[in-house]
Amino acid sequence: MILFEGDLGKLERRFRANFINSLGGFKSVVLIGTKSAIGNENLAIFSSLFHIGADPSLCGIVIRPNEEKQNTLGNIMATKQYTINHILPDFYKQAHQSSAKYEEGKSEFEEVGLTPEFIDSITAPFVKESKIKFACKLIQKIDIQLNGTFIIIGEIIAVSAPSNCVHEDGKIDLEQSETITLSGLDTYHITKQIARLSYAKTNKPVDEIH
Amino acid sequence: MILFEGDLGKLERRFRANFINSLGGFKSVVLIGTKSAIGNENLAIFSSLFHIGADPSLCGIVIRPNEEKQNTLGNIMATKQYTINHILPDFYKQAHQSSAKYEEGKSEFEEVGLTPEFIDSITAPFVKESKIKFACKLIQKIDIQLNGTFIIIGEIIAVSAPSNCVHEDGKIDLEQSETITLSGLDTYHITKQIARLSYAKTNKPVDEIH
Repeated sequence: MILFEGDLGKLERRFRANFINSLGGFKSVVLIGTKSAIGNENLAIFSSLFHIGADPSLCGIVIRPNEEKQNTLGNIMATKQYTINHILPDFYKQAHQSSAKYEEGKSEFEEVGLTPEFIDSITAPFVKESKIKFACKLIQKIDIQLNGTFIIIGEIIAVSAPSNCVHEDGKIDLEQSETITLSGLDTYHITKQIARLSYAKTNKPVDEIH
Repeated sequence: MILFEGDLGKLERRFRANFINSLGGFKSVVLIGTKSAIGNENLAIFSSLFHIGADPSLCGIVIRPNEEKQNTLGNIMATKQYTINHILPDFYKQAHQSSAKYEEGKSEFEEVGLTPEFIDSITAPFVKESKIKFACKLIQKIDIQLNGTFIIIGEIIAVSAPSNCVHEDGKIDLEQSETITLSGLDTYHITKQIARLSYAKTNKPVDEIH
């Protein structure tokens, strides 16, 4: 099927949401932990995390300030801090459940059955059940006026990862850490490595790295 | 292992690039096709695609204007158009090879052995070998001054997808389309679906959708 601009505009609302959300390919899916100014803990699932740079270490997330996500945005603006936690097959249903519209003041940690964890001086809660997790401080908030969303840029200020998941050259083995991936709005997948490839050069074909 | 801000700054450059690039979890990995103002075709691999919204249909990419990626950025600014093409296990090595620093004026399509394809009035080249592919028009360029990168926001103006990969409710089956995913800078993975989950509500546990 081939759809053009005019066709996309005419798609039924739910169809279009499913279609466009899965069109970009597999996504990072993580739980973002925050604390409000008065200390309430919040946990929300996000699938828009993207890498911006390694030096300084920066990443971005897109936040649509709807009912489920407005607390995350409010808490980040108030405390300038948040944690990002990978999701494992063991608790992907609890992670998905965190997107339900819980009342203000209720902690999604408690409601879905995940455990807040605190590391050193970081005030935002991590997810104890995650293996790979990191904390960010707010660097920049960008308004996307076209659709009322925001891009939040954060600098990574702490990382926790099991040593057996980190290769000698720094690469994190995301299968060893049991990290899962998402397609569309609601479909979870594990992965199977095809190969790691060498740095590409114009004068020779790429090799597999073992 | 736990690393804090100061530790991250002291990591060896290559270690940090591998570490931070794999920290965010699995990523969308796509080939971006563009044409220069004088008609030269360009193809480059990107792993920073993210969803911004479905109505209007918007997505973002991060571009670091280094030697390999400056042509993509220049072409998008000149022609306001680009295509985004999923990668299959059949040609992931060619896709990776497109990141080599080919001379100005050489087409990566030709150099790596992929086929440019033209659909209707879209002037940017698609990748014939991809199953899921779409075209965007440039909407906004955002400077990330902190590290000299740019976020390019595009509106989706055309989509091509095999009908047997699109569910009745609009969800694209990314395993049916053989779309692969990336971890870090260089490791390619296929996926295996765990489950599709129902919309989360506060008063009942999530179900699997079959």
